[in-house]
Amino acid sequence: MWSTARKRILVLGGGCGGISTVRALHKALHGRTDIEIALVNQENSVVFQPMLAEVISGTIGLLTTVTPIRDVCPGATLSVRTVERIDLDNKVVITSHGFRPEQPVLPYDYLVLALGTLDNFGAVRGLQEHGLHCKNLGDALVLRNRLIHLLEEADIEQDAALRRRMLTFVMAGGGFSGVEAIAEVNDFVRDVARRYPHVDPAELRVILVHAGPRILPELPASLSRYAQTMLTRRKVEMRLQTRLAAVTADEAHLTDGSVLPTKTVIATIGATPNPVLLALPCQQERGRLVVNAALEVPEYPGVWALGDCAHILDHKTGQPCPPTAQYAVREGTRVARNIVAAIEGTAPRPFAFSDWGMMSALGHRAAVGQVLGIRVSGWPAWVLWRAVYWSKLPGVTRQCRIALDWLCRVLLPRDYAQLNVAPSERITRAHFEAGEVIMRQGDPGDLMDVMIDGEVEVVQQAEGGERVVATLTRGAWFGEIALFNEEPRSATVRTRTSVNVLSVDRRTFQTLVAHLAPLRDAFERLMQHREAADQARCQQHEQEQVVF
Amino acid sequence: MWSTARKRILVLGGGCGGISTVRALHKALHGRTDIEIALVNQENSVVFQPMLAEVISGTIGLLTTVTPIRDVCPGATLSVRTVERIDLDNKVVITSHGFRPEQPVLPYDYLVLALGTLDNFGAVRGLQEHGLHCKNLGDALVLRNRLIHLLEEADIEQDAALRRRMLTFVMAGGGFSGVEAIAEVNDFVRDVARRYPHVDPAELRVILVHAGPRILPELPASLSRYAQTMLTRRKVEMRLQTRLAAVTADEAHLTDGSVLPTKTVIATIGATPNPVLLALPCQQERGRLVVNAALEVPEYPGVWALGDCAHILDHKTGQPCPPTAQYAVREGTRVARNIVAAIEGTAPRPFAFSDWGMMSALGHRAAVGQVLGIRVSGWPAWVLWRAVYWSKLPGVTRQCRIALDWLCRVLLPRDYAQLNVAPSERITRAHFEAGEVIMRQGDPGDLMDVMIDGEVEVVQQAEGGERVVATLTRGAWFGEIALFNEEPRSATVRTRTSVNVLSVDRRTFQTLVAHLAPLRDAFERLMQHREAADQARCQQHEQEQVVF
Repeated sequence: MWSTARKRILVLGGGCGGISTVRALHKALHGRTDIEIALVNQENSVVFQPMLAEVISGTIGLLTTVTPIRDVCPGATLSVRTVERIDLDNKVVITSHGFRPEQPVLPYDYLVLALGTLDNFGAVRGLQEHGLHCKNLGDALVLRNRLIHLLEEADIEQDAALRRRMLTFVMAGGGFSGVEAIAEVNDFVRDVARRYPHVDPAELRVILVHAGPRILPELPASLSRYAQTMLTRRKVEMRLQTRLAAVTADEAHLTDGSVLPTKTVIATIGATPNPVLLALPCQQERGRLVVNAALEVPEYPGVWALGDCAHILDHKTGQPCPPTAQYAVREGTRVARNIVAAIEGTAPRPFAFSDWGMMSALGHRAAVGQVLGIRVSGWPAWVLWRAVYWSKLPGVTRQCRIALDWLCRVLLPRDYAQLNVAPSERITRAHFEAGEVIMRQGDPGDLMDVMIDGEVEVVQQAEGGERVVATLTRGAWFGEIALFNEEPRSATVRTRTSVNVLSVDRRTFQTLVAHLAPLRDAFERLMQHREAADQARCQQHEQEQVVF
Repeated sequence: MWSTARKRILVLGGGCGGISTVRALHKALHGRTDIEIALVNQENSVVFQPMLAEVISGTIGLLTTVTPIRDVCPGATLSVRTVERIDLDNKVVITSHGFRPEQPVLPYDYLVLALGTLDNFGAVRGLQEHGLHCKNLGDALVLRNRLIHLLEEADIEQDAALRRRMLTFVMAGGGFSGVEAIAEVNDFVRDVARRYPHVDPAELRVILVHAGPRILPELPASLSRYAQTMLTRRKVEMRLQTRLAAVTADEAHLTDGSVLPTKTVIATIGATPNPVLLALPCQQERGRLVVNAALEVPEYPGVWALGDCAHILDHKTGQPCPPTAQYAVREGTRVARNIVAAIEGTAPRPFAFSDWGMMSALGHRAAVGQVLGIRVSGWPAWVLWRAVYWSKLPGVTRQCRIALDWLCRVLLPRDYAQLNVAPSERITRAHFEAGEVIMRQGDPGDLMDVMIDGEVEVVQQAEGGERVVATLTRGAWFGEIALFNEEPRSATVRTRTSVNVLSVDRRTFQTLVAHLAPLRDAFERLMQHREAADQARCQQHEQEQVVF
């Protein structure tokens, strides 16, 4: 598919910016058989981000908000692959492989970098392990399923404290995406909870944590206040001027010292550049590629960058352009025109654009925003929000589908069927803060843990209280006996410090032990050792180091 | 939620039969506060099976064909759990646990077993590892994503043989579900393929493999012939009087000796009872629970069984009732009435029902069937099919949504956006037939394999052809060096017999080796050993046992 006679324009990334570039290139170069336009993207479709939040709550159908890239980018060769390496000196891009293990090498004459950013969950302890993303369609489906799963579990849970923990939902980040998502989560759980006879609506807590003094800081203060009042009236709790400090399977710790008991932490905080771009020998500004006014990478003529992964200065203010779809789309058009200029030998032109404004949906028929300098709020803003974004949907098909979904939402009750497709992960990482119980004596065994770091104590209940029978650190295992023998846990494991572990579930443990002889031998040795120590301890009534 | 003062009717399984039982019980016992109805099901929703095939092709939206159980079973306590053990002597059911590891014990006074069957993929070599199911909503989504993924890969694949392999889709089983699914798969791939510029429609192959002499054996011969002619005209190839013998990642082997190069084998063959039921001390007939005419398990009064998991004899013919939704629904109503009779101390009544007929959709506006003794085919049958099943949809909400989806399908083009949610499996099993290549010298390393059984030979290319440098059997590993050192494969591994392996991907391998010391030590020892042997071999130009 990669001919050698033609000049090749290669666009990396099929978000708003990449798609806009390809479309503008196709329009300008239509009919030129000497030029090939190619696009590499991880998915075969593009998500219309502004409506992603409505997917969580089921207002819009799962597939309604995504458009197949082939439909919006006719004339481009699409590779549904991940970009693994960019070699600017040799003008080639290496992508992930398909069914055959050889890695494809894509040569280019002109390169457009539109790879966006990734969520930066590494900055908060435990967020990588326990936090939920809210960036693409898969995230929305996972989040939706989690909400339904928690309502189902809460409905049959008799422990009131655990039930409240299940019914507490925390969002970190009060920017546009955080506010829109938490508003939809709030509407969804409060609406659907009515179908759960044993869930008391008063037990539901939806909490928005935001680092700044007001949410939606990009909007004027009066509109932020309006949004806060509206969300508070709908029972969303605000935690301002504080941040996430750590997340575990059961708690969210905030920097102000408070601890929220919750099983659901969603985060829209922080963005980190695609690691492929970090490796490039080009100037970067906080992880974004520095480009000139024409959006070209100065060190490598013929290479352009745009969207969230580029550091672009506004032509009027001299400030960096915001990472919004509005800008990315215009940047894409500009890059396409400048590539055409480069092909035709004419001069490129600088990027210049002023946005029309910003809006945020607040759930249930309310929105807030500033459009062409005018402030709008409430249901007129909501109507405007829908009108504006609806008009920007790619293609009539999408517009019809979304209009029908909105109509259904008015006429029909909300759907809350679970869609289980992801097989449960079998080797996971988990994070614990100091003082948490990892496993409890007497419980059946479901997991084995390997310590990555930190310190835990192994405690056994005996007459006259508990006693510490071991302290374990990095590299130690625990919990394997209960899996091997299908017995209840013989001791409690509690963290002394912040701890990270690798958890292996029963089935994976059995598979590994059955087929990997060295692992089986090591487990058997360890278990013999522990049993011997246990017997010795029973005889001597003394404390031993290795018992659990 | 489980009070002790009330009598409890516990229904296991929320398919057609279970739901029908709960609804009839609720209707009959409405207002009786001394009786509690409880239902255990793995999912919080029930799939309307007849329309599942249309989900694969996107005719119906993903969530349109499922109904939340709470909506159709008001008044019942729902546990979204898996049944793990039934103790008929102590009258308790043990289910899977939720967030806490303790396993819930549900006591009952009356028990209804409606757990259906599972796909029996164990009977064909490699089917468990490589076959696709087509039974529930998750299966439909996985299958749909696979079809789209293969079209995307085929569009950028230059190797014509591999491309044809990707574009060949095999269905095993020509009963109702197999025929309906393959008809939709055929419509979908042939329709969507037009958006893929490098996929030649002539390369698409859709093959139906059926053990008997004609598909849809439950229908009269003339209707089977009609269905075969119609599907053949739409380019579905028929392979009759043959079965699947083995499935690998690249091939389907049939019992007639032919080998179909394909990456997609879907199977609707064979059903196996839920293992929980096999363990019960009750009489079983081919894995189904034998019940009396009133649908009660004779050994345990107060326990009823119905649907696909029960062996029920037809009141007229004396033959077993077919495992269809029509029967399950009627059986559920009868069981509910008989439970009410038992509570009220009146006599139970025997199950008696005659079905109205059977129909099968054949894709694109065609169907075939026999209704009240009259044979129908073509588009009138298709209209009838839609009318009958639409009228049987649970609830007006579902009816509205499906009607809208059908309308959209007429007006709008097909959707083919991928919905990636399942994280790729990190430890998988794979099956190979004799003579297949597991890994090829020179390829980059992406997996490590552990042999479960069989025999492979390790072959190295040298001047003057290839030579076998090792033979490996059960428990041996290969492929780890390329993962450790990020080097290309140093040899080819080819199967000598039918072989099963456990595959560990790069990331999991690195995680395991980093944190499990015994495994790291064993790998390091093995690699040193192999390197030493390799050097020795180079010096001696002789064959060694352990080299790869």
